[in-house]
Amino acid sequence: MSNLIHLNEKDNVAMASVSLEKGTKIKTHDLVCNTVIPAGHKVAIYDIPKEDPIYKYGDIIGYALEHIKKGDHVHSHNLYLKKASCEHSCESPHDHFPLKTKSERSFFKGYIRPGGKIGTRNYIGILSTVNCSASICHFIADGANKAFKEKYPSIDGFVGLGHGAGCCMTIGGEGLTILQKTMAGFIRNPNFGGILVVGLGCEVNRISDFFNAMSLNEGSLLKTLDIQDSGGTENTVIKAMTLIQEMIPPVAAAKREPVSAANLILGLECGGSDAYSGITANPSLGAAADLLVQDGGTVILSETPEIYGAEHLLIRRAVNCRVADKLIEKIKWWEAYTEKNGAQINNNPTPGNKDGGISTILEKSLGAVAKGGNTPLQEVYSYAEPVLSKGMVFMDTPGYDIVSITGMIAGGANMIGFTSGRGTVVGFKPVPCLKLASNTHMYDRMKGDMDINCGPVLDAGVSVKDMGLSIYKTILETASGSKSKSEIFGYGDHEFVPWHIGAVL
Amino acid sequence: MSNLIHLNEKDNVAMASVSLEKGTKIKTHDLVCNTVIPAGHKVAIYDIPKEDPIYKYGDIIGYALEHIKKGDHVHSHNLYLKKASCEHSCESPHDHFPLKTKSERSFFKGYIRPGGKIGTRNYIGILSTVNCSASICHFIADGANKAFKEKYPSIDGFVGLGHGAGCCMTIGGEGLTILQKTMAGFIRNPNFGGILVVGLGCEVNRISDFFNAMSLNEGSLLKTLDIQDSGGTENTVIKAMTLIQEMIPPVAAAKREPVSAANLILGLECGGSDAYSGITANPSLGAAADLLVQDGGTVILSETPEIYGAEHLLIRRAVNCRVADKLIEKIKWWEAYTEKNGAQINNNPTPGNKDGGISTILEKSLGAVAKGGNTPLQEVYSYAEPVLSKGMVFMDTPGYDIVSITGMIAGGANMIGFTSGRGTVVGFKPVPCLKLASNTHMYDRMKGDMDINCGPVLDAGVSVKDMGLSIYKTILETASGSKSKSEIFGYGDHEFVPWHIGAVL
Ligand SMILES: [Ca+2]
Ligand SMILES: [Ca+2]
Ligand SMILES: [Ca+2]
Ligand SMILES: [Ca+2]
Ligand SMILES: [Ca+2]
Repeated sequence: MSNLIHLNEKDNVAMASVSLEKGTKIKTHDLVCNTVIPAGHKVAIYDIPKEDPIYKYGDIIGYALEHIKKGDHVHSHNLYLKKASCEHSCESPHDHFPLKTKSERSFFKGYIRPGGKIGTRNYIGILSTVNCSASICHFIADGANKAFKEKYPSIDGFVGLGHGAGCCMTIGGEGLTILQKTMAGFIRNPNFGGILVVGLGCEVNRISDFFNAMSLNEGSLLKTLDIQDSGGTENTVIKAMTLIQEMIPPVAAAKREPVSAANLILGLECGGSDAYSGITANPSLGAAADLLVQDGGTVILSETPEIYGAEHLLIRRAVNCRVADKLIEKIKWWEAYTEKNGAQINNNPTPGNKDGGISTILEKSLGAVAKGGNTPLQEVYSYAEPVLSKGMVFMDTPGYDIVSITGMIAGGANMIGFTSGRGTVVGFKPVPCLKLASNTHMYDRMKGDMDINCGPVLDAGVSVKDMGLSIYKTILETASGSKSKSEIFGYGDHEFVPWHIGAVL
Repeated sequence: MSNLIHLNEKDNVAMASVSLEKGTKIKTHDLVCNTVIPAGHKVAIYDIPKEDPIYKYGDIIGYALEHIKKGDHVHSHNLYLKKASCEHSCESPHDHFPLKTKSERSFFKGYIRPGGKIGTRNYIGILSTVNCSASICHFIADGANKAFKEKYPSIDGFVGLGHGAGCCMTIGGEGLTILQKTMAGFIRNPNFGGILVVGLGCEVNRISDFFNAMSLNEGSLLKTLDIQDSGGTENTVIKAMTLIQEMIPPVAAAKREPVSAANLILGLECGGSDAYSGITANPSLGAAADLLVQDGGTVILSETPEIYGAEHLLIRRAVNCRVADKLIEKIKWWEAYTEKNGAQINNNPTPGNKDGGISTILEKSLGAVAKGGNTPLQEVYSYAEPVLSKGMVFMDTPGYDIVSITGMIAGGANMIGFTSGRGTVVGFKPVPCLKLASNTHMYDRMKGDMDINCGPVLDAGVSVKDMGLSIYKTILETASGSKSKSEIFGYGDHEFVPWHIGAVL
């Protein structure tokens, strides 16, 4: 077992998994440490000539300020960033992830929905237009779970989706549009077999206006109810139960069938990150993401604040300049948004990050971006926008886990992969969310909540590639119906949180 | 039964409850209609000399443009507004609501809390710091309700308080401060016998930072738990159950005792207003509010956007210029807030309002302000700020019902009065919320949800004063433990919605 972690075959540095004394011999890389290498810091595994790029995560994190010898400590003292403009090349150097042929691709067992989208779960949703109808949506879901869930085991459950917004918003404003796009995206997510939308009646986000704005039409699997029209709580619940009973037979008849992994849309998230997230869980999830992309599937990277200031590392990977320009536009929007709201957006390495061995903003952002793997950036989406491209795409979301994941599910994600260093417990009905621990210590303490331990990359010499393979296997199993930890606990009734933008009047 | 509604003894106009033909004789006011008076429109009940003020709701809604004769239609054609500056007098003309002596005051049966605050309910709350701990708070509440509610009937229940915020907010920003103030206000609301705060551990709104910022201290009735420290969901729920079991004996031992109505803090709200709200439910609730103020109690008027542009009608009622200035400051804040967010704030009568008989912005705002009664404005509070003054006070909140009421409960409200024309169904644990219908038609359709019908002011000749008396009686009964309609349904688990301000990062 090596004391070095080599994150990518392209890398000319590796990371010390423990503090290494000067003179330590590392057999796996045939080198001797020329100075102390603190834990988490980088050591050169080849000679790096002055001005040459330094690769970590298979990507450039900076350039050699001087000639760096094999075994040297690589950090702020001998590494520098070139001006960002040099990095905006709009080239796509990542053609070493060939798509597999259809016959080589992995399979999972999913629900084929009318129109061809593939669900990994089979829920019926009860969606509120406004907080005024949130409680009644939960009443209806609770009632339906009691009445029908045991009787129809092929239905995963009935989920009430409430939220805090929907009224006293500006008509035509960005806030209402984002709410409506998120709601429409949930309605269209293939993990729902059917949806009942419940409104109060006098809210700004009225059902009729919402349906018109989002080109939604009622049908046998998309029904609506207004509380005021229905005559209050009791009548609304009675009517809702009738509508749901009518929906149940076709939803319960849905059966899992083998489908290509190309139908997976995997949303990526990290939250409660620690010093290990960027070297264990994130690159391992990235290795799994690369396998999914090679299988013809889609992975969604998100959390714009985490790439802020290092956007060129994604721009460099964009398949064309149109995609690159879309990302630049998002970055500009964030600058205006944070300034308008008196908020700070600063993704530079903190003194704590630097002590931990993070040298540049590129390296820090790469730690987060690592979960997207190394394939080209195919498309850039707005929050909650339908994701139609295959391959690795970016969605503009906040870093706030719950809000970010809500947006990706609205975009069509049917699986979520969520890395954490500190631990997280949430779940996201109707979409299963696999939790990846960055370290064994936390995994051992929170085994009930974390699905996969990526700590062995650090403490047991497991390669990132092998860890990625094992994650990908779990993704396929979970997509096929095996339950994630948060599903076993029953999480997901309170994590529908559309991004809140704009004034509450 | 009269076809005119005379809202206040001081008024020189009355409203037609049905359309009145020219020549209609109104015996109750000894007048003959000089023209058609459409339903909802105003008729002069005395001669009004040119330039004289026109009173509705006991307040000035404009001035006579010409000499108006008894029986004339009073509307935009013969009524005008003076420049607002003339109205800013900082006088307090309302000294005709003498405080009752202690022995004359009404009583209710409440819970006397340590420190002397009086609760109208006896709940135990489980409060989340961040959305990441919202689900677990509901798990804990559900578990405690199942395990303990039947066994301890003196406890009204265990309520999980989740919300969408708490992370990826700017430290030191207005958004985080408002969230923390709202949470601290709920912790201090006397309707809670005990509170358990549950955090994730790595959120911006960490328990320790929140407690420091809001000067909160743990104690036998205020406990805390971190999910990450506790080792995940299962351990957190187990620990939570132990902490709650320790809280139960003192909370269950609380007993209702007769206390003065002076201990009531009544939060006022209107939502889904219609053409009748301003002439039936709002002034009737206002009459009840005046009775409570005379009994030494507190009423909170809120919803700043509803007085915007007509703020001088409240400024005129301010007890001193300091209070008036505070209100002016809030109005200025709203102008900046809406401009920054590209939102419109416009409270002018719409064409539909004018067709319905509303002549000026003052009259429109008075329709909303009417629920605050006619006593002087004693103090102006920020959102969620502790309300310490007696009498009628104003809290700066949005008009959004749920957010406004959340703020008033945080301020200490132990009763809510909520008027509606279109109907509303929500509830607000831990505080009972009485729903007042503005019209009999809606009341009949939504009887299960609406507590009181104020329609008889319009359709059965009941005076506003008598309706106010009956509302006040119901307030005292409900404060003493009789259940409101929304409590019977079990509403209140999804209506904790702190005002959301600022960027989500
Ligand atoms: Ca993150
Ligand atoms: Ca995140
Ligand atoms: Ca209102
Ligand atoms: Ca309102
Ligand atoms: Ca909720």
